[in-house]
Amino acid sequence: MHCPVDVVILAAGKGTRMKSALPKVLQRLAGRPLLAHVLGMARGLSARHTVVVTGHGAEAVDAALPALADGQPWQAVRQEPQRGTGHAVQQAIPLLADDGVTLVLSGDVPLTHPDTLAALLAAQCAGGPDALALLTVDLADPHGYGRVVRDESGAVRAIVEEKDASDAQRRITEVYSGILAAPTARLRAWLARLDDCNAQGEFYLTDVVRHAVADGVPVVAHRIDDALQVAGVNSPAQLAALERAHQHRVAQALMAQGVRLADPARLDVRGELVCGQDVEIDVNCVFEGRVVLGDGVRVGANCVIAHATVDAGAVIEPFTHIDGAGAGVVVGAQARVGPFARLRPGAWLGPEVHIGNFVEVKNSTLAAGAKANHLAYLGDATVGERVNYGAGSITANYDGARKHRTVIEADVHVGSNCVLVAPVTLGAGGTVGAGSTVTKDTPAGALTVVRAKAVTVPNWRRPTKSAD
Amino acid sequence: MHCPVDVVILAAGKGTRMKSALPKVLQRLAGRPLLAHVLGMARGLSARHTVVVTGHGAEAVDAALPALADGQPWQAVRQEPQRGTGHAVQQAIPLLADDGVTLVLSGDVPLTHPDTLAALLAAQCAGGPDALALLTVDLADPHGYGRVVRDESGAVRAIVEEKDASDAQRRITEVYSGILAAPTARLRAWLARLDDCNAQGEFYLTDVVRHAVADGVPVVAHRIDDALQVAGVNSPAQLAALERAHQHRVAQALMAQGVRLADPARLDVRGELVCGQDVEIDVNCVFEGRVVLGDGVRVGANCVIAHATVDAGAVIEPFTHIDGAGAGVVVGAQARVGPFARLRPGAWLGPEVHIGNFVEVKNSTLAAGAKANHLAYLGDATVGERVNYGAGSITANYDGARKHRTVIEADVHVGSNCVLVAPVTLGAGGTVGAGSTVTKDTPAGALTVVRAKAVTVPNWRRPTKSAD
Amino acid sequence: MHCPVDVVILAAGKGTRMKSALPKVLQRLAGRPLLAHVLGMARGLSARHTVVVTGHGAEAVDAALPALADGQPWQAVRQEPQRGTGHAVQQAIPLLADDGVTLVLSGDVPLTHPDTLAALLAAQCAGGPDALALLTVDLADPHGYGRVVRDESGAVRAIVEEKDASDAQRRITEVYSGILAAPTARLRAWLARLDDCNAQGEFYLTDVVRHAVADGVPVVAHRIDDALQVAGVNSPAQLAALERAHQHRVAQALMAQGVRLADPARLDVRGELVCGQDVEIDVNCVFEGRVVLGDGVRVGANCVIAHATVDAGAVIEPFTHIDGAGAGVVVGAQARVGPFARLRPGAWLGPEVHIGNFVEVKNSTLAAGAKANHLAYLGDATVGERVNYGAGSITANYDGARKHRTVIEADVHVGSNCVLVAPVTLGAGGTVGAGSTVTKDTPAGALTVVRAKAVTVPNWRRPTKSAD
Repeated sequence: MHCPVDVVILAAGKGTRMKSALPKVLQRLAGRPLLAHVLGMARGLSARHTVVVTGHGAEAVDAALPALADGQPWQAVRQEPQRGTGHAVQQAIPLLADDGVTLVLSGDVPLTHPDTLAALLAAQCAGGPDALALLTVDLADPHGYGRVVRDESGAVRAIVEEKDASDAQRRITEVYSGILAAPTARLRAWLARLDDCNAQGEFYLTDVVRHAVADGVPVVAHRIDDALQVAGVNSPAQLAALERAHQHRVAQALMAQGVRLADPARLDVRGELVCGQDVEIDVNCVFEGRVVLGDGVRVGANCVIAHATVDAGAVIEPFTHIDGAGAGVVVGAQARVGPFARLRPGAWLGPEVHIGNFVEVKNSTLAAGAKANHLAYLGDATVGERVNYGAGSITANYDGARKHRTVIEADVHVGSNCVLVAPVTLGAGGTVGAGSTVTKDTPAGALTVVRAKAVTVPNWRRPTKSAD
Repeated sequence: MHCPVDVVILAAGKGTRMKSALPKVLQRLAGRPLLAHVLGMARGLSARHTVVVTGHGAEAVDAALPALADGQPWQAVRQEPQRGTGHAVQQAIPLLADDGVTLVLSGDVPLTHPDTLAALLAAQCAGGPDALALLTVDLADPHGYGRVVRDESGAVRAIVEEKDASDAQRRITEVYSGILAAPTARLRAWLARLDDCNAQGEFYLTDVVRHAVADGVPVVAHRIDDALQVAGVNSPAQLAALERAHQHRVAQALMAQGVRLADPARLDVRGELVCGQDVEIDVNCVFEGRVVLGDGVRVGANCVIAHATVDAGAVIEPFTHIDGAGAGVVVGAQARVGPFARLRPGAWLGPEVHIGNFVEVKNSTLAAGAKANHLAYLGDATVGERVNYGAGSITANYDGARKHRTVIEADVHVGSNCVLVAPVTLGAGGTVGAGSTVTKDTPAGALTVVRAKAVTVPNWRRPTKSAD
Repeated sequence: MHCPVDVVILAAGKGTRMKSALPKVLQRLAGRPLLAHVLGMARGLSARHTVVVTGHGAEAVDAALPALADGQPWQAVRQEPQRGTGHAVQQAIPLLADDGVTLVLSGDVPLTHPDTLAALLAAQCAGGPDALALLTVDLADPHGYGRVVRDESGAVRAIVEEKDASDAQRRITEVYSGILAAPTARLRAWLARLDDCNAQGEFYLTDVVRHAVADGVPVVAHRIDDALQVAGVNSPAQLAALERAHQHRVAQALMAQGVRLADPARLDVRGELVCGQDVEIDVNCVFEGRVVLGDGVRVGANCVIAHATVDAGAVIEPFTHIDGAGAGVVVGAQARVGPFARLRPGAWLGPEVHIGNFVEVKNSTLAAGAKANHLAYLGDATVGERVNYGAGSITANYDGARKHRTVIEADVHVGSNCVLVAPVTLGAGGTVGAGSTVTKDTPAGALTVVRAKAVTVPNWRRPTKSAD
């Protein structure tokens, strides 16, 4: 690409049919706001500058933008009132320099492929320094869309709206997508010539085509046949349809890399899923944020995994919930987690660690070979190698005000139903007897038991249901 | 509608292909017996009277009817033996008064829309006081169905069975649905003229068309093109197909209201799901009975929620099981429940309550801000504001005969792995040390600990695996 | 069938597009390697002998074969290097006797129906003692496949590859499936006449057709229209597509038997699922190995059940994980398990046993009417009739080296949060008080309590967050 690219994102729409208090461009697809997907396109093109035109719900969009833009240069401009797509771009154009090419995107069209936009910009370039380039799409049923009218040479002559179209024009299946690229200096001039003399009293961006043709400027089209790439979101049903189409593509891409999916239609990836060789993912799993699965990792049915790294050969059993948001989660090589396990932020499991059913781990490191197989809680703990943490045992890490740390040194055996009241350290190789509440450090190599004597009441009669 | 409407529901069929001990009309769709759906149609039309014609499995149907009819007037009549659809209506007609219109429905056709039946009755009305009205449907493939033969004026002349149809008639795509409406007095007369001189030796209800035409009575048709509305259930495969079609419609309707569904194909609503604004439901959730989700409620993946009210802003994390059957469940505003939580009948959670993983709550109230975050059981408990209920703690509410109540007053902090043996009251602001078994009331503001002394055995050798 | 049948399975392919370290024929469909499905076909035909031709990943295939062949007679032969399908069969043919018919199958074509193969062999028989029989399939889009060219009489004359086909031949929709049957003596001779004078320099098995025609031997075809039966696996996407197609068929077959499935598209059966009458299976369940569900069993949403028998009338609540691999699991009649329960190998539950939420049972027998309803672990235990095992209670069965047994006799009531340190026996009818750690046998009929005295510290101030 020769010219710098500046991007204008139209993000002022209300989205009445969404019936939501949230502005439409903040609705989420694959876990991210629509606007984040579109900002990602600008980032992918290394856009010099990005201007987001806000309107409905502008405060919410403005508040969300810094996080969404994620470091790329951007500016928001308010369109108030909303008087059409041309009017929207009119608000943005003063912020852009004449030496660039402006690419106009819609904040509610999330699935345009970067290659498609690059091809559109290349077509603009190829059309000459003044060319206007339109992204167009072939639709089996073009009803309701603006048709792209070309002359005999194939040059674009006009975009004709459904209601203004002749019968012959209505048979055209190529329609305008809403996405265009133009030299900013030219676009600025065309925008200045827009008027609102039409049925809706709005300034249409599509009218720039007419002005370009009138100016004798080349109008070129990059034509695709994949309607999904230019599909917009106007209702929850459309949002769900795009979500499923997107997830379908993600699944196909993962399989092309060699990932084995038990059911591609029952996979949800909301973020980035990086997979090694011979990864297997069973039905109905959800991945969020960045998740890395090493070679040979197997993920069982019905798992939810977010912000985590699972090393080679580890097995995640069904019904496992992992969420490392913030501090991350690491599952070591050859480790085994679940079923019914929950790993929370800061759970760092070494190699061959076993976390079993009804076990919760939070902000704790477990060294190689440590095991917590049944009904247990490990919070704010440092667990040594080969520790066996008994069923029903709990780290009491919270005194009602602060969290304290529990240190369990290597080879300790914690019996069942123990409580370790932090701060506390269990010396290496020691044993804690079942049912003990440990409030003081225990010596290495020793057996520590906190247990009362048994009292037996013979011939004791349990309460019985009364006759009534 | 001018005339009172009486409904006859044909519910005598065996449903051999269901291969079930249950009569076909008691098979469930969306959690309710097929017959309940059809009784609901009669209720929706404010039918004056409803007669259910039973046969196969009549005892089971009779036993189920009072609950299914849910207060609407109904009567069951036995068809014994089963000699055809005309014979079935012959059993019912003596129970109906001559001043009404009889609407004949099939007990195994569950998805007819109330508006469709209202339109059929309106068509009957419009046809004049004597008119016979048929519900017909256009099928792309009408093979095997009785075709609706009309004359040049569009008036219905006959229903012709596949085997009796001419080639021209076989090309007719409009078929009879099995649903009709007729003035009861007229219908009575036509039924009396039915005969069983046909291949199967049965009395066909469709023969009333012939008699109506012979009498010169207008035969009108209300024609629809939505085959699902008149689809019957004859096999588990058909039942499953109707179930999915029904769930698809439910999902579309929820989305039209603004509900965001991560996957409309993975939602099951078996009852009534009432949603506020900006409700989000993740993949693979099941709702049963009446469930109310307030504004902004988010339901995570893989939840099962029945008979419950979730107030505004509450978050239900993945793998949560809520069932309030009987006593109900309430989740307060901004509360957070799950993952892996179970709320049972009588769990009433106040605002901002947190119920975490592997926690079960039954017949207990939790006041605002109370927390039970890890591996715990709360049964028959009254929990005050801001109580922190420790990991692994249990209310021992059952003495083997009776259930007793545990009262935990405001601001109490219950340590980990405690047992509260009911009946017992923990005074406000008190603390119970970890590992304590509390059998007597504890004073307000005090620390109560039930714990033995620690004993340490130095240089203790754990059992080791023998060499063999 | 008159002749003995010997089977050759081509299993030397690499499957580059699988991008897997595993040889293609060991990739799993419905939980079993592709090669196991194909070996099952040979077993289903009572093949006299089966020769597996290995190549890529031969060591892994050789290692897997004994388990996969499961007792049927087999032999592996190495194809090294791989010089085409004809070359592959050349490696196998020396191992087969001249008196049989050789059936050539592909190790990556897993879903051929046994009846189809039987029909192919019957067609071979019917064609006469020398006949070559091809399995062919009609494809809507035959592009890229070898077309079956027949003469006016319908006799097969040749298989013509796409690139060699005339326009007329390209319109033929009948293609060769890769599966054929021939008298071994004849096949041996034809194989000896193969050459590699073709574009790829390989020995094509399809060339035997040419030699058969040249020899004047009848070439017959058994033609099917179900492409799935001859579909091969070359990529994860194809594997997933076959998996779903197979699961769809399994679901249809179960429904035809009367099983009620809430969603046939969300069922995964990886093994053998045997169902009684009136079995209901909710959405998103996975079955592995041999699972038997008795009459009236209901399985809730999101269950994973493997290697288990569930007796009549039992109810498996949602989110239940059962895996009996090795020792099996039995759920007794009218028992109730879940939600969030886990049954591990050797969990044998008697009639009317209740296992509730967050309960794990392993290698334990529970007699009729025993209950463990909440947050508990039962391992290596023998539990008597009507025992009530309290919430939070644990069997400490592992001393760090060996597992010991816990015996709980009939009618014992174990309180909440107890630990039973094995080996230990609780005498019949006894009661163990809440919070007790039991290390010695308890007498029948007695109350045993292990509990310290309560100490109260009045006006105790819990740690508070400091101002900073």
